Amino acid sequence: MQSLDDLFHVLLQDVYFAEKELLKTLPELAKKSANKTLRQAFADHRDETEEHLKRLDKVFEAIGKKPRGKICEAMLGIIVEGQHVIDEVEDDAVRDAAILAAAQAVEHYEIARYGTLRAWAELLGQDEIVELLSETLEEEKHADELLSSIAEGGVNESASERPQAAE
Amino acid sequence: MQSLDDLFHVLLQDVYFAEKELLKTLPELAKKSANKTLRQAFADHRDETEEHLKRLDKVFEAIGKKPRGKICEAMLGIIVEGQHVIDEVEDDAVRDAAILAAAQAVEHYEIARYGTLRAWAELLGQDEIVELLSETLEEEKHADELLSSIAEGGVNESASERPQAAE
Repeated sequence: MQSLDDLFHVLLQDVYFAEKELLKTLPELAKKSANKTLRQAFADHRDETEEHLKRLDKVFEAIGKKPRGKICEAMLGIIVEGQHVIDEVEDDAVRDAAILAAAQAVEHYEIARYGTLRAWAELLGQDEIVELLSETLEEEKHADELLSSIAEGGVNESASERPQAAE
Repeated sequence: MQSLDDLFHVLLQDVYFAEKELLKTLPELAKKSANKTLRQAFADHRDETEEHLKRLDKVFEAIGKKPRGKICEAMLGIIVEGQHVIDEVEDDAVRDAAILAAAQAVEHYEIARYGTLRAWAELLGQDEIVELLSETLEEEKHADELLSSIAEGGVNESASERPQAAE
């Protein structure tokens, strides 16, 4: 790689793979969630993620490349780690807290990546791409805030009220 | 795991491992950076990271557990992926842009984790822990903002000015 265009293309493939993984993971997270609001949030974010992939298709088109993912070790690590913890929890409310934590790690990863891609697109003078990435970035930030408000709205509190007999 | 205390302990071990990995990685990032401001930022953040580990020691103490790390697949994934990309770049300015991107993914991971841990500590009524985690969280957010300002301050622009002969 010699240019920022090359680097942009590589990170774009990374995010494409990450979004595809997330599309598969979100229904699993919804299924494991006991809290109804949390389940709905994952269902909604799944739809948003499909939209994010469509936008990424347009970004690939704008740079004249085929939409293709490149294995994203970071996203795989975040997901695998989240699954390990979630599957070890025996209490519903505590599991929901673990699910929220995993989902927020995912959102922050995406916020970091879309932030970087947008900054590079600006420098490359790719206005259409900046527009597409900005829309997704805002949705990722909103998703993270929504998860925080669900956590504060009772999921964490329910988890903290569990008896600690197992200690 | 049955309680939020258990979950807190597990995530604490995850972050402890992540910070230790970062402590080893930051000097490597500094060494590979061509931009002086970026090198200095990594040197400073290494010192901050040592401080974060000391605070985590205190958090372990406050919950009556020994400081111990638990393999953090997420952080390993972010670091490995960053190294792969960085090592593939042939141009100094473009490499700096790649280094910045990797470092910001790391910072966002930490922001997500410290945010979650702090929220849980609040619910568990652990005021001293909330205080310790808040300090670190603010420093991680500041580190991320600093990296953004370094990117905007010229690193990315230098990268975008590279000839694209290799395309």
